[in-house]
Amino acid sequence: MSRHEVFMKRAIQLAKGGWGKTNPNPLVGAVIVRDGEIIAEGYHQALGGPHAEVEAINNSKQDVKGSTIYVNLEPCSHYGKTPPCALKLIEAGIKKVVIAMQDPNPLVSGKGIKMLRDAGIEVIEGILEKEARVLNEIFIKYISQNMPFVIMKTAMTLDGKIASVSGDSKWISSESSRQQVHVIRDRVSAIMVGINTVLVDNPALTTRLNNGRGRDPIRIIVDSKGRIPIDSQVINVDSSSGVILATTSLIDNEKEKQLKDRGVQILKLDNPSCKGYVDLNKLMHELYKLEIDSVLLEGGGNLNAAALNCGIVDKVMFFIAPKIIGGIDAKTPIEGEGIRLMKDAISLKNLNIQRFDEDILIEGYVKGE
Amino acid sequence: MSRHEVFMKRAIQLAKGGWGKTNPNPLVGAVIVRDGEIIAEGYHQALGGPHAEVEAINNSKQDVKGSTIYVNLEPCSHYGKTPPCALKLIEAGIKKVVIAMQDPNPLVSGKGIKMLRDAGIEVIEGILEKEARVLNEIFIKYISQNMPFVIMKTAMTLDGKIASVSGDSKWISSESSRQQVHVIRDRVSAIMVGINTVLVDNPALTTRLNNGRGRDPIRIIVDSKGRIPIDSQVINVDSSSGVILATTSLIDNEKEKQLKDRGVQILKLDNPSCKGYVDLNKLMHELYKLEIDSVLLEGGGNLNAAALNCGIVDKVMFFIAPKIIGGIDAKTPIEGEGIRLMKDAISLKNLNIQRFDEDILIEGYVKGE
Repeated sequence: MSRHEVFMKRAIQLAKGGWGKTNPNPLVGAVIVRDGEIIAEGYHQALGGPHAEVEAINNSKQDVKGSTIYVNLEPCSHYGKTPPCALKLIEAGIKKVVIAMQDPNPLVSGKGIKMLRDAGIEVIEGILEKEARVLNEIFIKYISQNMPFVIMKTAMTLDGKIASVSGDSKWISSESSRQQVHVIRDRVSAIMVGINTVLVDNPALTTRLNNGRGRDPIRIIVDSKGRIPIDSQVINVDSSSGVILATTSLIDNEKEKQLKDRGVQILKLDNPSCKGYVDLNKLMHELYKLEIDSVLLEGGGNLNAAALNCGIVDKVMFFIAPKIIGGIDAKTPIEGEGIRLMKDAISLKNLNIQRFDEDILIEGYVKGE
Repeated sequence: MSRHEVFMKRAIQLAKGGWGKTNPNPLVGAVIVRDGEIIAEGYHQALGGPHAEVEAINNSKQDVKGSTIYVNLEPCSHYGKTPPCALKLIEAGIKKVVIAMQDPNPLVSGKGIKMLRDAGIEVIEGILEKEARVLNEIFIKYISQNMPFVIMKTAMTLDGKIASVSGDSKWISSESSRQQVHVIRDRVSAIMVGINTVLVDNPALTTRLNNGRGRDPIRIIVDSKGRIPIDSQVINVDSSSGVILATTSLIDNEKEKQLKDRGVQILKLDNPSCKGYVDLNKLMHELYKLEIDSVLLEGGGNLNAAALNCGIVDKVMFFIAPKIIGGIDAKTPIEGEGIRLMKDAISLKNLNIQRFDEDILIEGYVKGE
């Protein structure tokens, strides 16, 4: 690992401090180095707060003039919630800027680098770019495609069942797998399930971390006919975040009113090509407009199949418990009509395999190289 | 790793040279050491041939008197196909015997060690015992329980399907996963499928290794009503090994005669508690009598469920391809009635995870600690 990579790795590590607090902004960390020593660090801590570069400069106990800054994302060049960081670096007399990746926003990409170079600052690009792109996979999708990044999560037995024939699913996965799901709920903007999950499991869909903290994601229920019981936990649980019901014109007026009275936001998104179903693509567009940059889809087999089918899923996470339950009628993670030929199957890319206690987590990407 | 372990590891490595050639005998390797140097090696190469200890002594270019021998299994004490190895070691003047595990045959276990100690030879036990027990897991089951060791192998998509809704399964798993299956076919005594697999896929069930060699396992078809087509590949393929049809009294007399004429061995094993089905426990007893020490079960969801249900399965191998195919009607690896409660699921032990190209192989044991 080169010296540049060592400092960039630290910047990426710092950036992770903002997980779940910066959405829909990116995760950014910065390290200021002089004579091979780190003199200051900072990261983007929360949406609306100072950017990482400014945090690092402000944290420095010495003048940063003539030093090098490492930052995992191209410094911004525009006046947004804060003045442009590129300008701040120029004013502070930074001599060299090392970045991992350009800003993925097509409207501003490269402009920060140009501003720095025009001011005579040396800019080095592409250090640990791959890691930086994984770190900000949510932001990249959100800002470049104007759609939230969708993570489909499932927990199944080794023989591919998400519940027994009698519907029992407590618990398939290990304690530490379930805790990891709460870690992810804490990081994403929203969580999404189908009405069947609400009817069968009546989940709260809140974030319950071992250390008690945790931010609840916005809870989205896909419920084309408005069948959700008014007393379901997901609506009534004590939570700082709201509930969105994604439905269609089939919802009963009275039910709609009752839900609105309880603060549920109703999105009616009829699917023109599939009557009686919610248009998931339209839903993603609406979520983007609400600045929801990421959705954890914890659906059953039908909703998962529909989500994959309409191309909104970016990443999948399969927690596999080393258990066998069997059953021709047991539910499986992806159902729907299914793909007919094996050669047309969705091939996952960039696999990652981890263990959580006895469970095996297989992660992969639906798109990408 | 201690010096004892280094030499035992070599003995275990040598033992693997007999894979697929010694059944139903164990895999045994031996290393003769003097003054910390290996002076001779040997392994049990084939059923009926010399045992590993004898091979090693015969291979030695110098007198082995006063040396130490490392062998992964307790030397035998009885006159079987060859004279007892313990006697041979005594006669050769071996000073010390290091073994990994006692003979698992309850009738002779410990007798070889006693014979050696009675002759004044130092015996050290338990070196790399765990590895040695895995190496001979087939032999241990066969000799101590008088039943073949059954390996259930399946290949599925990440969403738990063994075929698409249209029945397409070519190919779910990668080239190197499929090659690994042929490596295992080469090692086991028999392969077993259900009649549905024969009707749908018409497989040959032969061993096709990349380097061309390979011993075909005995092909067993579970076919309670004798529906197997007389022209199916599994019966007619050019092979050195035979075919067993496990059926019931429901088989048609004429069909039975046709099959016998083609050399198929017929085992009629009616299941008293489940009319119309083959009694798989009885079948395993019959296979034991035929000196079949191991069965690779490549069944569909029904046969796999039945095999698990009646407790004949020892080990499972799930090749998981990182693909998603979906489909509520797609076949899954374990079907049948299913276990009703998650707490009663079969928990796999001693998991092992490997990669074969992009595929993930998860192996585990149904029984054991």
